Amino acid sequence: MNAPIRINSRLDVRSQFPAIENWHYLDSAATAQKPQAVIDAITNAYACDYATVHRGVYQRSSEMTVRYEAARAAAATLIGGAPNELIFTRGATEAINLVARTLPKNGRNRVLVSQLEHHSNIVPWQLAGFEVDAVPLTSDGQIDLDAAEVMLTEEHRIVGFAHVSNVLGSILDAKRAADIAHSKGALLLIDGCQAVPRVNVNIGNIGADFYAFSGHKLYGPTGIGCLWGRSDLLQQMPPWQGGGAMIDEVRFERSTFLNPPARFEAGTPHIVGAVGLHAAIDWVQNLSLDAIHAHEAALVAEARDALRRVDGVTIYGPEDSAGIVSFNVNGVHPHDTATILDDAGVAVRAGHHCAQPLMRVLGVQATARASFAAHSDTSDIEALVRGIEQVKRVFA
Amino acid sequence: MNAPIRINSRLDVRSQFPAIENWHYLDSAATAQKPQAVIDAITNAYACDYATVHRGVYQRSSEMTVRYEAARAAAATLIGGAPNELIFTRGATEAINLVARTLPKNGRNRVLVSQLEHHSNIVPWQLAGFEVDAVPLTSDGQIDLDAAEVMLTEEHRIVGFAHVSNVLGSILDAKRAADIAHSKGALLLIDGCQAVPRVNVNIGNIGADFYAFSGHKLYGPTGIGCLWGRSDLLQQMPPWQGGGAMIDEVRFERSTFLNPPARFEAGTPHIVGAVGLHAAIDWVQNLSLDAIHAHEAALVAEARDALRRVDGVTIYGPEDSAGIVSFNVNGVHPHDTATILDDAGVAVRAGHHCAQPLMRVLGVQATARASFAAHSDTSDIEALVRGIEQVKRVFA
Repeated sequence: MNAPIRINSRLDVRSQFPAIENWHYLDSAATAQKPQAVIDAITNAYACDYATVHRGVYQRSSEMTVRYEAARAAAATLIGGAPNELIFTRGATEAINLVARTLPKNGRNRVLVSQLEHHSNIVPWQLAGFEVDAVPLTSDGQIDLDAAEVMLTEEHRIVGFAHVSNVLGSILDAKRAADIAHSKGALLLIDGCQAVPRVNVNIGNIGADFYAFSGHKLYGPTGIGCLWGRSDLLQQMPPWQGGGAMIDEVRFERSTFLNPPARFEAGTPHIVGAVGLHAAIDWVQNLSLDAIHAHEAALVAEARDALRRVDGVTIYGPEDSAGIVSFNVNGVHPHDTATILDDAGVAVRAGHHCAQPLMRVLGVQATARASFAAHSDTSDIEALVRGIEQVKRVFA
Repeated sequence: MNAPIRINSRLDVRSQFPAIENWHYLDSAATAQKPQAVIDAITNAYACDYATVHRGVYQRSSEMTVRYEAARAAAATLIGGAPNELIFTRGATEAINLVARTLPKNGRNRVLVSQLEHHSNIVPWQLAGFEVDAVPLTSDGQIDLDAAEVMLTEEHRIVGFAHVSNVLGSILDAKRAADIAHSKGALLLIDGCQAVPRVNVNIGNIGADFYAFSGHKLYGPTGIGCLWGRSDLLQQMPPWQGGGAMIDEVRFERSTFLNPPARFEAGTPHIVGAVGLHAAIDWVQNLSLDAIHAHEAALVAEARDALRRVDGVTIYGPEDSAGIVSFNVNGVHPHDTATILDDAGVAVRAGHHCAQPLMRVLGVQATARASFAAHSDTSDIEALVRGIEQVKRVFA
């Protein structure tokens, strides 16, 4: 961690992001800014190529259908999956709700999550009638997999863990999590929202059963996300939402349905969302996720070192967090911290980060959070530290 | 119908649609093309103003939150509703699924729809455990409200009717439908997908209980739609999808939830979808829906007259349909018709239009469908007729 900054591991893509000129945007874990290539793909899809998919007999619609399905293939390939296992959803939240609502319980009524989960990996299970157990964390904020091994029972249908914590940046040992889940006949769903933009994910290597991620956190458009699921599991799951494009035959007495993934995509899809997401996937793959991860790891090390040198700052999470650093200025509410940072042109998130249970574990109401992206650089960290010094002066 | 074409009722906005240059786009009922103002709003939201909503403490996020809520207010106002009754969904399909899945049945297990409904107003009810009864149509393709009055019982929880048929263009007498529904203590949900872009809707005048419509058919972006619901009904409905932004307090044992509309908007919303939809609403309101309706009514009259002058063409639906004309060239499969029309630069839809039950009523497998928009003009109809003459020559 105290090694010299690895300049040669740094990316230089800031100029590709038109919306962050003169702005230190450190809220990429909430939503990523978009590179020009993604914005152009969205604009052109509406201004040049727009048509519906799957239904039109005319050429423009056929072409858009090819592009929609190519986006599906790209999203699947990004995490090592097959296209017919990849369902486009409104976002990661809908992806997890879809699993919670349609996975046959097979007599198992419990789900095992962790104390660091986002509300989107807690509440859907509750609404679907599961009892929720939560694995504690290690002292440095990792999901305690030893504890998970002890807690898991044959009453648990599924284990749901974040691949990367949205608050602490903790990286899950996903392969071990899968082995633990499977040892008791449970499934593993991974919330990959923060992982997919930050680390190279391969669901085959992990052995996951479901993997959810969102487009807007992956430099893509809002309103689209992905659920990857094991083909045999998706086949067993009944449709959740009904409508056009997911049916085989509709009669008023009863209807029959298409196979996955179409079975789970009722209605006109977010066509341009898929096109924009494809452009975003191409963009991150062109940089390579290994390079993005190295870039953000270097920034995290630099940021943690810099924050440690400021008296009166508490830093949360493990040293090797992925692109995300939560902190508090002692004695200052993080909302006040974030407001003063905003005046200094630095955008951080302050709040419970949709992880109220984790806040209770940390013993705080809220934290401030700085999160990095491929466009982040040392100037952002310098501005953050200058801003925190200002916070301390205001509240001295 | 045979009056001279009312030239002065025509709009002239074709040049505002960049994607239809040299193209006769007659598939607006599937999805509308986008005016430049909408495309610009989307592009600028990503390239200049992008931030998350509801959570960020920094100014850019506050500003985007204001814009997101302004879009909600605009969507509600467009149909005469209040902002706190308007839920953003992925589309009209999700809107209907949401009602089907969360409306307490109160001991009533049946829904009354019509024979012309889109699958999205049939299948969601089936998946939610309702028995579906279907009102027949009048000889000219209107929902037979006299029959509805007879068929409705106190076992029916809700009546679900299309405001404008996506196949026939038939316009519902929505106020009478509401009165009939309420006379037996049932509710009325209106599928307004084809109505909102074409006629001036006021849910207060109708007395509807739920109203669903999509953004992409209203000249707006893909991936967003709206559910308007009576405030007291929404209050009684439990959350459907769980996640961030819809919770009050989350504990592993149990969680509590916000009031509508937030209760039904789990996860990061389609932020830019809302911004783009707002631009689309401003665009149609600037023209006025009365002007758009008059424009499309004149085109429908012109198209029906022109098709009637072609031997061997069957025209479906009522004379005063709203912007939509289904037809078949006798002896020719509509897919072949659409393919030849495509070669002639005319885009029409061919198929069952997600309305298989209606196809059975019409006694056909499929129809061809020409649907108009504010940018449509006489040149589109002339190209359509020339194309149909070519179809007839090919299949002579």
